[in-house]
Amino acid sequence: MTKTGDGRVAHVTFDSLWAELDPVGRAPSGGYRRFAWTRADLTLREWFAAAATARGLDVVVDRAGNQWAWWGSPDVDGPGVVAGSHLDSVPDGGAFDGPLGVVSAFSAIDALRDRGFVPSRPIGVVNFGDEEGARFGVACAGSRLLTGALSPERALALRDNDGVPMAEALRTVDRPMPAADPEALRRVGVFVELHVEQGRGLIELDAPVGVGTGIWPHGRWRVDFDGEANHAGTTRMADRRDPMLDYARLVLAAREVAERHGAVATCGKVRVEPNGVNAIPSRVTAWIDARAPQAEAVKRVIAQLPPSTEESWTDETVFDDVLRARISGVLGDPPRLATGAGHDAGILASKGIPTAMLFVRNPTGVSHSPAEFAERADCLAGVEALTAVLHDFAQ
Amino acid sequence: MTKTGDGRVAHVTFDSLWAELDPVGRAPSGGYRRFAWTRADLTLREWFAAAATARGLDVVVDRAGNQWAWWGSPDVDGPGVVAGSHLDSVPDGGAFDGPLGVVSAFSAIDALRDRGFVPSRPIGVVNFGDEEGARFGVACAGSRLLTGALSPERALALRDNDGVPMAEALRTVDRPMPAADPEALRRVGVFVELHVEQGRGLIELDAPVGVGTGIWPHGRWRVDFDGEANHAGTTRMADRRDPMLDYARLVLAAREVAERHGAVATCGKVRVEPNGVNAIPSRVTAWIDARAPQAEAVKRVIAQLPPSTEESWTDETVFDDVLRARISGVLGDPPRLATGAGHDAGILASKGIPTAMLFVRNPTGVSHSPAEFAERADCLAGVEALTAVLHDFAQ
Repeated sequence: MTKTGDGRVAHVTFDSLWAELDPVGRAPSGGYRRFAWTRADLTLREWFAAAATARGLDVVVDRAGNQWAWWGSPDVDGPGVVAGSHLDSVPDGGAFDGPLGVVSAFSAIDALRDRGFVPSRPIGVVNFGDEEGARFGVACAGSRLLTGALSPERALALRDNDGVPMAEALRTVDRPMPAADPEALRRVGVFVELHVEQGRGLIELDAPVGVGTGIWPHGRWRVDFDGEANHAGTTRMADRRDPMLDYARLVLAAREVAERHGAVATCGKVRVEPNGVNAIPSRVTAWIDARAPQAEAVKRVIAQLPPSTEESWTDETVFDDVLRARISGVLGDPPRLATGAGHDAGILASKGIPTAMLFVRNPTGVSHSPAEFAERADCLAGVEALTAVLHDFAQ
Repeated sequence: MTKTGDGRVAHVTFDSLWAELDPVGRAPSGGYRRFAWTRADLTLREWFAAAATARGLDVVVDRAGNQWAWWGSPDVDGPGVVAGSHLDSVPDGGAFDGPLGVVSAFSAIDALRDRGFVPSRPIGVVNFGDEEGARFGVACAGSRLLTGALSPERALALRDNDGVPMAEALRTVDRPMPAADPEALRRVGVFVELHVEQGRGLIELDAPVGVGTGIWPHGRWRVDFDGEANHAGTTRMADRRDPMLDYARLVLAAREVAERHGAVATCGKVRVEPNGVNAIPSRVTAWIDARAPQAEAVKRVIAQLPPSTEESWTDETVFDDVLRARISGVLGDPPRLATGAGHDAGILASKGIPTAMLFVRNPTGVSHSPAEFAERADCLAGVEALTAVLHDFAQ
């Protein structure tokens, strides 16, 4: 690597790492299908290990299956400052949600080294496993397992849409069964997750980078509607017990109730059995995702919908005030914003680890879609901000 | 086979053939998943060929892929009288829809032989392929291909839910590409399809067996709702283009409009992309199945719903009056009834082949469900009726 000290090294790193990730797990939609413990995910993990090794960083996989790359030795020199995010995606997700944080962390390390920076404490990059929960239904599974917020017993019994339990998925790819890893967690003195913004806050604030104040409380609920399978041609309308009608009413009610309570609620996933054109369904399983600035509003929304089973719940996250003030100082007081999206940063913060987030402007606000985007200039501004933050915490 | 002449041979045949079919393609639901050109379907076709061969019947597969078992030689002695139905099922369908007609036909042949009957014309048993259209979306695909109502080009391009075109499915199991087969069709002088009733008509008429008068006009339509994939947590309700809402409105409208027009309409199948809990869908594809005693009513229902693409349409079938009168005479004037369910008999009738249907009472009216049922005594009454009809037409 040619030393320049002018920041251009970070640009080169960013562009080349970005290009390497581009084809991995790409779907016909133009988006990505990078689900935990699939071939695409393993390729991404190999990529992470290779990027770390190329930089002389030590690669460690914790007992929960998350990958860490260390510059320095946290077991010797004490807890480090960690950046990173995740590499998995939702079905047909975008390129930025997750990978931007990991690529930016490696780019920041290259930028620091290019300046001849010698850190006073270890610096780490993390790739949290199964952040989206796209395959097994529980978001932030890697960080939840790490911190003990998700028990290995519950995790291993989770099933994907093909009925494959996580235990079998891990066995298939020759991975050990997960466990909490307090030792790995103790290595993290500070965690800074850089992430593409998933709303329109920074557009309106006209800034490329913002600092996170917190994460809305949010949860997922499942609703099971039972009916009676029957022939679509020979069963009189009056004789039917059609659960699709219950589902349709739920979808419309969720929208109406969420609007009334200043919340957001989404019915994005549904399973219909038997899902035949000429068969009245026997069962429709619906999922509701609901979030709001206050937990009370979310609970009120769910209470006004048909009875459901809570599949996950995450309380409001308020990021460390002192940490945010310090970052704001380093970055010249960029805009602050809360988000409705859950992140591994929220899981670590809930366990008392000083945690912060940086957001990079999203010119359309679209995320969880092939259309998700961030301008290269904004991404590089994000790298620069992350470099400054790591520098500040490790000088 | 011990000759008894008292009809008990038919009972033995019925019970043993029924027991052979029982495990094939059974799903965890207790129902059946017997889709065209799958392993289960091939096992059923082997079963058909074995049952025919065991009776010394000649097995012929027509160019459309339907199986025929002949007692006598239609190419020498002229068109025969054919009974039978299909062996495939809807997803998690019942045991009776289709197989009852095939098993009853073999049982009737055994009964005729047990009486020492020598037919004056050939008698055939048919297993029409892919009647339910569960895999490729077009119902009665086998009989439609046979008669030319479905072109091979269109059929081969049909795709199943995994995106596999019919052409590839056929190649995988080493089957020739289908074609219309007028020669095979010319062998059919009369077709009598015995079928479990799929409604409550014969319960109300208090009779084990009825004669079909016709089939309601019916069709399938597809509705494509496009939206914008986005993050479920960060996208304000007002900024969303959520096609699940359009779908929910369609489901409720279909119900309401069908009731208003004396029709039935069903939204039994839906495909959601990407179908993630935390993603607003980018696209929802819905299917509507609509039927009514008059075509005009069906068309009015569809016209009042969002724009759709017609995937199939079948005009009203009125079964041959002369044939029905003769059968009614043979059977002592059983109840007559029309049905909302499509059948291969309707396809053959539309091509001018004298066609009739016999229905066997369904004690709950439930069909296309694991709960589909017919009492053994009613099934045996059906076999007896079919035996009498074949006897009458071939004496």
